[in-house]
Amino acid sequence: MFSCAFKEALCTLEKTAVARDRQGGHAAPEKALLRDAGLLRLAIPAQHGGDERSWPDIYQHIRALAAVDSALAHVLAFHQLQVATVLIYGSPQQQRAWLRRTTDENGWWGNALNPRDTRLQALPLAHKAAAQGYELNGTKGFCSGTRGSHYLTVSARVEGHSQPVLGLLETAAAGIAVKDDWNPMGQRQTDSGSVQFSQVHLHASAVMRDETASNTAFHTLRNCLAQLVLVNLFVGVAQGARQHARDYALQHAKPWLGSTVERATDDPYLLRRMGEMQAQISAAALMADHAAALLQKAWLRGEHLAPSERAEVAIAVFEAKVMAHRCTLFATQEMFDVVGSRGTHADLGFDRFWRNVRTHTLHDPLDYKLQALGRWAVYGEEPSAVNYN
Amino acid sequence: MFSCAFKEALCTLEKTAVARDRQGGHAAPEKALLRDAGLLRLAIPAQHGGDERSWPDIYQHIRALAAVDSALAHVLAFHQLQVATVLIYGSPQQQRAWLRRTTDENGWWGNALNPRDTRLQALPLAHKAAAQGYELNGTKGFCSGTRGSHYLTVSARVEGHSQPVLGLLETAAAGIAVKDDWNPMGQRQTDSGSVQFSQVHLHASAVMRDETASNTAFHTLRNCLAQLVLVNLFVGVAQGARQHARDYALQHAKPWLGSTVERATDDPYLLRRMGEMQAQISAAALMADHAAALLQKAWLRGEHLAPSERAEVAIAVFEAKVMAHRCTLFATQEMFDVVGSRGTHADLGFDRFWRNVRTHTLHDPLDYKLQALGRWAVYGEEPSAVNYN
Amino acid sequence: MFSCAFKEALCTLEKTAVARDRQGGHAAPEKALLRDAGLLRLAIPAQHGGDERSWPDIYQHIRALAAVDSALAHVLAFHQLQVATVLIYGSPQQQRAWLRRTTDENGWWGNALNPRDTRLQALPLAHKAAAQGYELNGTKGFCSGTRGSHYLTVSARVEGHSQPVLGLLETAAAGIAVKDDWNPMGQRQTDSGSVQFSQVHLHASAVMRDETASNTAFHTLRNCLAQLVLVNLFVGVAQGARQHARDYALQHAKPWLGSTVERATDDPYLLRRMGEMQAQISAAALMADHAAALLQKAWLRGEHLAPSERAEVAIAVFEAKVMAHRCTLFATQEMFDVVGSRGTHADLGFDRFWRNVRTHTLHDPLDYKLQALGRWAVYGEEPSAVNYN
Amino acid sequence: MFSCAFKEALCTLEKTAVARDRQGGHAAPEKALLRDAGLLRLAIPAQHGGDERSWPDIYQHIRALAAVDSALAHVLAFHQLQVATVLIYGSPQQQRAWLRRTTDENGWWGNALNPRDTRLQALPLAHKAAAQGYELNGTKGFCSGTRGSHYLTVSARVEGHSQPVLGLLETAAAGIAVKDDWNPMGQRQTDSGSVQFSQVHLHASAVMRDETASNTAFHTLRNCLAQLVLVNLFVGVAQGARQHARDYALQHAKPWLGSTVERATDDPYLLRRMGEMQAQISAAALMADHAAALLQKAWLRGEHLAPSERAEVAIAVFEAKVMAHRCTLFATQEMFDVVGSRGTHADLGFDRFWRNVRTHTLHDPLDYKLQALGRWAVYGEEPSAVNYN
Repeated sequence: MFSCAFKEALCTLEKTAVARDRQGGHAAPEKALLRDAGLLRLAIPAQHGGDERSWPDIYQHIRALAAVDSALAHVLAFHQLQVATVLIYGSPQQQRAWLRRTTDENGWWGNALNPRDTRLQALPLAHKAAAQGYELNGTKGFCSGTRGSHYLTVSARVEGHSQPVLGLLETAAAGIAVKDDWNPMGQRQTDSGSVQFSQVHLHASAVMRDETASNTAFHTLRNCLAQLVLVNLFVGVAQGARQHARDYALQHAKPWLGSTVERATDDPYLLRRMGEMQAQISAAALMADHAAALLQKAWLRGEHLAPSERAEVAIAVFEAKVMAHRCTLFATQEMFDVVGSRGTHADLGFDRFWRNVRTHTLHDPLDYKLQALGRWAVYGEEPSAVNYN
Repeated sequence: MFSCAFKEALCTLEKTAVARDRQGGHAAPEKALLRDAGLLRLAIPAQHGGDERSWPDIYQHIRALAAVDSALAHVLAFHQLQVATVLIYGSPQQQRAWLRRTTDENGWWGNALNPRDTRLQALPLAHKAAAQGYELNGTKGFCSGTRGSHYLTVSARVEGHSQPVLGLLETAAAGIAVKDDWNPMGQRQTDSGSVQFSQVHLHASAVMRDETASNTAFHTLRNCLAQLVLVNLFVGVAQGARQHARDYALQHAKPWLGSTVERATDDPYLLRRMGEMQAQISAAALMADHAAALLQKAWLRGEHLAPSERAEVAIAVFEAKVMAHRCTLFATQEMFDVVGSRGTHADLGFDRFWRNVRTHTLHDPLDYKLQALGRWAVYGEEPSAVNYN
Repeated sequence: MFSCAFKEALCTLEKTAVARDRQGGHAAPEKALLRDAGLLRLAIPAQHGGDERSWPDIYQHIRALAAVDSALAHVLAFHQLQVATVLIYGSPQQQRAWLRRTTDENGWWGNALNPRDTRLQALPLAHKAAAQGYELNGTKGFCSGTRGSHYLTVSARVEGHSQPVLGLLETAAAGIAVKDDWNPMGQRQTDSGSVQFSQVHLHASAVMRDETASNTAFHTLRNCLAQLVLVNLFVGVAQGARQHARDYALQHAKPWLGSTVERATDDPYLLRRMGEMQAQISAAALMADHAAALLQKAWLRGEHLAPSERAEVAIAVFEAKVMAHRCTLFATQEMFDVVGSRGTHADLGFDRFWRNVRTHTLHDPLDYKLQALGRWAVYGEEPSAVNYN
Repeated sequence: MFSCAFKEALCTLEKTAVARDRQGGHAAPEKALLRDAGLLRLAIPAQHGGDERSWPDIYQHIRALAAVDSALAHVLAFHQLQVATVLIYGSPQQQRAWLRRTTDENGWWGNALNPRDTRLQALPLAHKAAAQGYELNGTKGFCSGTRGSHYLTVSARVEGHSQPVLGLLETAAAGIAVKDDWNPMGQRQTDSGSVQFSQVHLHASAVMRDETASNTAFHTLRNCLAQLVLVNLFVGVAQGARQHARDYALQHAKPWLGSTVERATDDPYLLRRMGEMQAQISAAALMADHAAALLQKAWLRGEHLAPSERAEVAIAVFEAKVMAHRCTLFATQEMFDVVGSRGTHADLGFDRFWRNVRTHTLHDPLDYKLQALGRWAVYGEEPSAVNYN
């Protein structure tokens, strides 16, 4: 399923993952590696020169990358998500123009769509002439993948409207400044800093949805796509943590003083713990795959997608998220009980797994996913299709 | 997928489930109902007059029945398991003879195969004449479904051999006494009492495997079939518990004094708890389905099944069991936090769900399933294919 | 600390606990045993002929009894709670009259104070003549210990007032009918059925608090006393469950087929599980003792008790309740993993521990205790002193 | 209970804790601060010029310091532990000499006693002359507090003996090299690197226990003292994490999009989570206090301490450790759900709490503490008094 170039990239990234986690900042050579491996075309339709991989296939790539480097996995996943955004909201012309260009330039997409941050304003320029687009001013935070990107999706508030306008921009456009202000405790190389917009002109031809448009069920499938990125990241990190714990324990762990086993890896408590990880990770992976299959089916329905069909995808994604969230925190915490105290040496960098997912599991609170699942279980109520749902 | 007769049986059984749980003992009319609904032929090949349903399909029946009455679900499942035992160990002649007869008589199978109970002795009668079979003496415990059955599978120890002989018997055969000694705190109508054998003649033609035979990977697939019965029972009970909790809460629960909601079912903690059940049950059900699909594939491989293929089925079954075990204890315990103190009235009988699964989850200890999963995760070691694995 | 009579009563009650759990209903001979052992005087001040034991001492009695029979422990505890109610709300005259009488008659107190049930109405009779008291009409549910009692505390609503009137009654008074309608899945012999009042005259001299009175911090200490009864019940049941699991496992449990130990009680998972119970039960017991010590200190402050002092008692009680609630559900569920499948025989009645605490832990929802602890942790906010807090 | 100097030191250390965690290495100015605040005399008897504080008092200091800086809390605690080691194993002359000197020089003690590392060899010099002591050669790892210390306790193996010799050394003695090789993911400033010994002369007068001596119950109380250091560290870190989470949430957290509250800190799930922390931390703190009180009593018994008395202390310490281990991992992980995604900014350094305790909770595996508690619960068996018990 994976190309040789991708497999090689995984090996290369693994070698520097610990050092780059410490360093943080922008991973320019590593992003170049992913680009050169052809991964930026995964989600692009064949008619625009892309690979047109299915979402289950794309998520497998994300998961495999996350096991090695979950920050770059996020960047790569969010690139695919912006491609999907063009496919969801863009007109046929916009899709042709921007995605063909993406293929031709082999370019990265960044994300300036964060709905919780409403500081970016869009001023309609329609009074000047017919359909002139908007002028954008303000700041957007948590803009994953913008640094080093070629294009941006953007959302901006129009005064008096609750619905933001959605548009497409070149990252190098006049008035756009990508800030180097991303410095979290985990997911350190996701380039998720803020972006400043100063008198940026969003052309009418680059407006995907204006402030008066209403959303269809298919439009809001984007939230499901984004949530399933998180799910697969969590699963991938859990798998990576388990793998490292196992390898280290086999090579270095010593049996405890009071135990009767000769190899640490035959300790009954260690085995039970590894078995627990095995079961939890398999459950989360299976649920992620199941949700991806449903999502793909819904994706192919396009604008024919009914709200009830969309709700079933959302529920499957939420359920998968609950298990993935739990299993990744479990695996990244308990891997230490497997490796023992020597496994805390900073050079091993095993804490990066936990820091990465503890950061990423805060993206949106699990409690409210559980609440939505509860409303589904009690009332059969479809989850609201807005922000993060 | 379910016949009308089966659906009607579910409704009928539901009505008396609470009373019969209290009463315990043998559920003769209810077993007649299942028999009349044609459920005893599910696993029998078409060539012997049966329905030849796939295992995933059969497990769906077990799960649906378990949601209503997990004791009878066990009895019905163990009937199918004994049919499978004939298909696994029996010669073509034995299969033809016993399964055609099962179809014709629409008869029940019971189980006297419990490997942990080694009190039943088989004395080879070969010294008398050629291939005379064995004489059976002793007792076998935990013989699910024997009471009221027409046929039995049996295992018995031959002195000096670790491998027991496996045979087929009519329950009404001379020397067999089915005891009315099953009185547990849950799963009260599984007819899992003991059976006494006194100078019972096991004919040579009814010996499926003698004490010198060795097991193939396909033979030991029986353990996977049996374990997956438990998994589906657990999932079914969890679904039943959730359903009852939801229905009762919607009708009867009152908001707590300090809460700000008008309906108890809008309480944030109740919703989160129901959401938790939803996620856990979906996970367990999906894993059970996944394991059943793998099992079916392995089943169709028959004697071509490789040990490594068999191991993959076993691992999937074990993983499903971990999640199902947890989710069923969770759901049957926390359903009470959903219904509140009025839901503890004895007439509602809600405690039967917990008693049923707390009894059944002790069938074989989960700790050792987790240990086996640990050995798989650490060493890639295939689980031993003996008892309960 | 315990009298010989009490210790003997514990031994006697133990012998019939399983049978009486099955039977349910009123435990007349057993209540007589507790009465004859002098336990009804524990909380009564020496000046009224009682033992004037401290609350920590009384709770130790409750806990020890709960390990054997948690239904009777509840009845005995609620007797002490009603004595405390007289000491908290009663005038010196009322205390003298009713408690001296309790001592002399060695009488049982029942409870008709449930604040969530507002069906019982009190009609002021003041219009007839000066201070004539009230006429009571209606029903009160969950009246623990009323059946077989000599006296009752009662709360009843007066139209137009949120605050109920509190009074004292003889159980045999005209118009009172104690119903035999208590039939729960656990705590089956707590005599917590409903009581009907039909034109019952509550004399002015028996009114402890009328509908216009306001509560002091000391008054609301009663809720802490009641909550700490639950805590000690939970701890006692957990101790009883652990004791039975240990004894049974030592005598009957067999090592699992795949384990390498010779005695089941040397299994590493069994030992870890028992160690977990040990730690959790010790924690809950220590917290219960700590809360009881604080409560006793607050009790001795009487009407001088400040709200902030009362709040500290409440917080300690809530914290103890969280741990006790968890540990008792844990111990009563996991005791089965210790005893194994043979331990599910109905004659052993081991499920009564879980049924008892699962019923009792629903008295008031733990979620709202945690929420109150959260408000204390975040804002330093004192818990509201009303219902169950 | 705390001196002004100590309180000021806490405030000063708080300010640089995040930066020093990042930096790691030796905290010379901060150790000077603790020294100047007079904290090195806490455990020294008055007769040698010390403060002779009780162990409960000393542990309160450790806990308060751990809430601010758990690495320095460990260094300070291990200083006290080495003072205790002199009091336990040292002769009256040794106590007088080394502790008076400690008081006079206000000197730090380090620890080269790690029993799992057996690389350090002691060669008896007795063949040279009468009682010449030993020559030490080799390396000792995990030597907390040695860097920057004035004195060391040391254990070393004598060939042919299982029991190591215990001695006292000046850190500046000829042949001792303290390595700068401590670089873990948490507890980064505990100076727990390795120490090399090259032809170091351990004088006969500095030998506390030779390889032929046997241990009394009082001797092995040292393990309890050490384990209770860990317990109090865990509790302190949990308290620190809770405090920071609360303060940050009050100031910065925003209510979630789907919630109905105006302040994030009124969110029902946040409150429940904070309540959970409150209950768990209170439980762990109470158990730590209880164990410290028992330990103090045992300490005062000195050589009169019976093994059974020692066992009761050990059990209380183990029980406290179970709760403290759990609550500190819970609080340091779930504090992030309280602060939300903005709380992951690296400048806040909130991940240090988890990294510190995840490192420290691996000191010795909790599973074997639970197993020992299990043996106590099942058999009443006293825990072995060797390594870490």
